[in-house]
Amino acid sequence: MSRYWSDLINKLTPYVPGEQPQLEKLIKLNTNESPYPPSPRVMEAILAVDANTLRLYPDPESVALRKSIAATNGLRLEQVFVGNGSDEVIALAFTALLKHKLPIYFPDISYSFYPVWSELYGVAHRTIPLTPDFSVDPDSYPSDNGGIIVPNPNAPTGILMSLSAIRTLLEKSAGSVVVIDEAYIDFGGESAVSLIDQFDNLLVVQTLSKSRSLAGLRVGFAMGNSELIEALGRVKNSFNSYPLDVVAQRAALAALEDEDYFRDSCQRVVNSRESLVVELTALGFKVLPSGANFIFATHSTASAKTLFDQLREHGIVVRYFNKPRIDNFLRISIGTEADNSALVQALGELLES
Amino acid sequence: MSRYWSDLINKLTPYVPGEQPQLEKLIKLNTNESPYPPSPRVMEAILAVDANTLRLYPDPESVALRKSIAATNGLRLEQVFVGNGSDEVIALAFTALLKHKLPIYFPDISYSFYPVWSELYGVAHRTIPLTPDFSVDPDSYPSDNGGIIVPNPNAPTGILMSLSAIRTLLEKSAGSVVVIDEAYIDFGGESAVSLIDQFDNLLVVQTLSKSRSLAGLRVGFAMGNSELIEALGRVKNSFNSYPLDVVAQRAALAALEDEDYFRDSCQRVVNSRESLVVELTALGFKVLPSGANFIFATHSTASAKTLFDQLREHGIVVRYFNKPRIDNFLRISIGTEADNSALVQALGELLES
Repeated sequence: MSRYWSDLINKLTPYVPGEQPQLEKLIKLNTNESPYPPSPRVMEAILAVDANTLRLYPDPESVALRKSIAATNGLRLEQVFVGNGSDEVIALAFTALLKHKLPIYFPDISYSFYPVWSELYGVAHRTIPLTPDFSVDPDSYPSDNGGIIVPNPNAPTGILMSLSAIRTLLEKSAGSVVVIDEAYIDFGGESAVSLIDQFDNLLVVQTLSKSRSLAGLRVGFAMGNSELIEALGRVKNSFNSYPLDVVAQRAALAALEDEDYFRDSCQRVVNSRESLVVELTALGFKVLPSGANFIFATHSTASAKTLFDQLREHGIVVRYFNKPRIDNFLRISIGTEADNSALVQALGELLES
Repeated sequence: MSRYWSDLINKLTPYVPGEQPQLEKLIKLNTNESPYPPSPRVMEAILAVDANTLRLYPDPESVALRKSIAATNGLRLEQVFVGNGSDEVIALAFTALLKHKLPIYFPDISYSFYPVWSELYGVAHRTIPLTPDFSVDPDSYPSDNGGIIVPNPNAPTGILMSLSAIRTLLEKSAGSVVVIDEAYIDFGGESAVSLIDQFDNLLVVQTLSKSRSLAGLRVGFAMGNSELIEALGRVKNSFNSYPLDVVAQRAALAALEDEDYFRDSCQRVVNSRESLVVELTALGFKVLPSGANFIFATHSTASAKTLFDQLREHGIVVRYFNKPRIDNFLRISIGTEADNSALVQALGELLES
């Protein structure tokens, strides 16, 4: 606390991201990064940046990148917004599209940044409990709302929502914006982008951090009706004209253009996930059905917190949330096959002892 | 307008950055970029980034970069904050440190993003007129204020404020934060960073976009008392955990480490500026005394707006602000010697005809 701080700063409880340990040799399964490097075209694009480009401001509108995203998704340029990671994109949506008199709604178990943005931007918010099996029930959301935001698949559960459930949310919320946060959609889910033409209140947010292996470069994007996109542009241009640097713009473009590499690396993650689920189930875990690049698992007898601490001692970092309903679960990112084997072996030993 | 927009979005008037024309062969003297590329060490650092680094999140606290900035400026790590360009850093300061019951104050002629951030974050603000010779008079600022923000040197005038004038502002505003926005300080000014130990209400903001030739990479930073820096960290961690990508962090570190290159390229810009002032004065311009990498000039007979349009037809882009008191001035970034010669020649021809 300080007399110089604004009232808001005293009240904020900042988001705490998963640890980025600087130690070598740790097996890092805690922040849902891709276990594989990005497409080789990304490195080519970075190596092709010349020094004289760096001295100039980047394109503030990221037109080349937005065009590529639009083309890939059957949209027009003015239906695409890009930002510094999907976190920045969603933060801007809170200011531009989710701040109204009525509260916004999101699941009680969900991305833990949503309540933080709500506090930061003074957006009234309520949570709706997931069903006992951790699903989103669209019928439990009220029609009168300031907006709805739901991750699909949900985090940290990994559970997918169907497009028909999303359609129900959109129809109920005809007067407000529904944000579908698709950070993990490429690992087996079906994107709501196909509904954009039918619903002018739909904003779909995606990221290059997971399925395109570019967490290090901070590129996220939103797709929706051009009026929604214009609102994001207005707040971005009132905040920071150039949130995406020239290297990130070019690298992202290169990643998007390599569809084969993208499909292949997503498929490898999905295959590893399915194998890991079988192995963990054999060890006595219950694993929620995952459409993501992570799984959410609880053991029939062992404590999640204890396992979390013990894994860390074995050099394996996963994520544990000390929160109601999920305080006996571990969230485990899908690693390389070697990472996953090491995890299964370590868990096997821990559970035996 | 759209029924989905928040009230705020309808009211916002976004900032309009200087044009980034995509045409080849234009002489671009409109956004105060360095005419020289960054240190060769920057390219080395970028080429050394490996693909496996890109798949991981960057250090959210940018510790290596902040340590380097701290060391260069005789500060401790906890006295340094970094962000996505100084625009993001200042935007966060509006939320964290400048939002109080009393209004903040800045010059009537100044960086035109200040009123935009004030609107975006609901910060009450008042402007204080520059003196008739376009200087900041610290005695014209009230003691009771929610904060003060002043660029030094000022933009778009280029006029420097003395450290004793800044000291006066700091002493008058003992109960609130004074932000000194030093985007252009390295071209002949004296940084207020030396006052940080004496004034716990001083926040000094700098950028790598101008004097370090890294506009394309979006790195800015703030220095001040650790309590002020903590407030910026709290709002950043409530907004976007990773605003600086791994390439930008490493490139910025490399740029900061090459002091010789930095001093040399700043000196070249200063030398070019002094030559350009002599030549423009000979053409009938009055040029305000500049401590920046741009000059602000008005002609005794020719209209600035007309010259602006005519220069553009000649392939030379400068900046014109259609605002009270400065609507007969041109802001001209210092280019390479060849750029400056082309400008002088074009102006000579235009003024003759």
